[in-house]
Amino acid sequence: MIIDKSTCARLLSENDNFLILSHEHPDGDTLGCAFAMCEILKIMGKKRAFKCADAITDDFCYLTEDFVADDVENPFIIAVDVADKKLLGTLCEEYGDKIDLCIDHHMSNTLYAEKTLLEERAAACEVVYELMNELGVSSNRYIRNCIYTGISTDTGCFRYQNMTSSVFKIAARLMDDGVDSGMINKLMFETKSKSFLKLEMLARETLEYHFEGKCAIITITQDMYKNSGSDESECHPITALPRQIEGVLVGAVIKEAPNGEFSISVRTEEGIDASEICARLGGGGHKGAAGCRPGCPYDELKVLLLDSIKKSLDGQKQ
Amino acid sequence: MIIDKSTCARLLSENDNFLILSHEHPDGDTLGCAFAMCEILKIMGKKRAFKCADAITDDFCYLTEDFVADDVENPFIIAVDVADKKLLGTLCEEYGDKIDLCIDHHMSNTLYAEKTLLEERAAACEVVYELMNELGVSSNRYIRNCIYTGISTDTGCFRYQNMTSSVFKIAARLMDDGVDSGMINKLMFETKSKSFLKLEMLARETLEYHFEGKCAIITITQDMYKNSGSDESECHPITALPRQIEGVLVGAVIKEAPNGEFSISVRTEEGIDASEICARLGGGGHKGAAGCRPGCPYDELKVLLLDSIKKSLDGQKQ
Repeated sequence: MIIDKSTCARLLSENDNFLILSHEHPDGDTLGCAFAMCEILKIMGKKRAFKCADAITDDFCYLTEDFVADDVENPFIIAVDVADKKLLGTLCEEYGDKIDLCIDHHMSNTLYAEKTLLEERAAACEVVYELMNELGVSSNRYIRNCIYTGISTDTGCFRYQNMTSSVFKIAARLMDDGVDSGMINKLMFETKSKSFLKLEMLARETLEYHFEGKCAIITITQDMYKNSGSDESECHPITALPRQIEGVLVGAVIKEAPNGEFSISVRTEEGIDASEICARLGGGGHKGAAGCRPGCPYDELKVLLLDSIKKSLDGQKQ
Repeated sequence: MIIDKSTCARLLSENDNFLILSHEHPDGDTLGCAFAMCEILKIMGKKRAFKCADAITDDFCYLTEDFVADDVENPFIIAVDVADKKLLGTLCEEYGDKIDLCIDHHMSNTLYAEKTLLEERAAACEVVYELMNELGVSSNRYIRNCIYTGISTDTGCFRYQNMTSSVFKIAARLMDDGVDSGMINKLMFETKSKSFLKLEMLARETLEYHFEGKCAIITITQDMYKNSGSDESECHPITALPRQIEGVLVGAVIKEAPNGEFSISVRTEEGIDASEICARLGGGGHKGAAGCRPGCPYDELKVLLLDSIKKSLDGQKQ
């Protein structure tokens, strides 16, 4: 059931113990939501804990280093920025069917939770920020850093097509009230690890163009992680690269998981629906960015992907 | 003489013919200011023309393609985003001592103009936007595109240390009123040419670390331009790369000019003075970014550069 912010605020007020879950391979928005929610609930005098299927990368240390979880009993379980219970990763088995509340901004949300606060926003952190206001909680610097992390990372530092004036207005309020935006920008957007640079070089060597340069594909294998000393947590900026190339309408990155399975991230220009391309391969997402995990060998997957991309490119011409 | 916005507005109202000058090697802020001023003056029923010492690159075509200059006689001359008359480039000789008004945001402005509207802002376009409001002129989409271009490019798309809540608030108002921010972001920040990608790959293969990874150096040669189909105009993003690497305090890029001479760009982290490093090689600049052109062969230059960097790194330890 979809609920509004005031119903959501009442739900939070009525409970005392909370467990917050983020999605697997956690990014800035899911972590920003999770730690902001933990701090908001703490200010409300509630007990709260946090779980994520995967480790949090070091660059988010400013969100995690001072966090101390409470012991929670029979908690009210909240998933943040998790569009599908499968995205809970290894936590899905234990919690997938027990989510009391989901706070999300993906319109593809499968409504797997008992109740869902769902708004079409650039970042789930926008929803959390407004929920905080609805609850009458005043932000502190830590909450503002959480929210800034979510809105800045999910918009590529205020530049993706999902940008709205609402994001700018929240950013202005965070800055007026005090936020470590300079430090966060440096960590999120300005710092590149040596292992990432090596990985990026190896990945870029696989760059291939299709359909008269309208499509660009990069492949990242487990061998590349080994040879660069990097891992999947550093992949994200590479995901954006193919679509940034002049003339490219559809960019895709094919990533090999440790078990040898491949997943695909697709980014598109306006006029081409990335979620449509991925839906044909059993996935989903947003119009400009989507993903899928077709579960077939690399060569077969490549044929399926190129076929789906061609359908969408052809569709655009009509 | 420094004047305020209301005095500036009166000056503009009192005159009928204007010539707007931008600085040499024009960037998004000086062009945003210039074309916004031209449009504002047009709405006010004035005649106006524009001049710049250098050609405007193609990526700013959305600002220039519909611009038609008026014939102006004995114009009131305005320099926008020009901190020093020398920055007028080849226009300095003709106009350097005849600037009636300068609109600027560099606190280093030499006050060479008869009157100067000077405010410490992230972008000169912020000053122009507020001047427009002072004049009672309503923005149109073209003016909003000009202003967005200036504020987004001068802040590295809302991420540099010069960011303020004022920039976010103006961006929000532009978006509410209608601005082609998606198109502008794409042109300014998201588009990488195929030749640039090739050049960057070749340049990155030369990446070397010194002094336990505290220094990183990249070299760009004329051969790389030839082999990538690129040229020096695409170098700029590479200049920032070495210093962005984790643990690097001093990043340097050595560039070969068409005549075979080498120039060096140095970027440093806080605490290390780039202008000091370059001053030892006969150059200069700012604390965080400086340059020099030692005029010696590559191998010799490298020894001199490393020696100067070592001195500054050693100095920091004390």
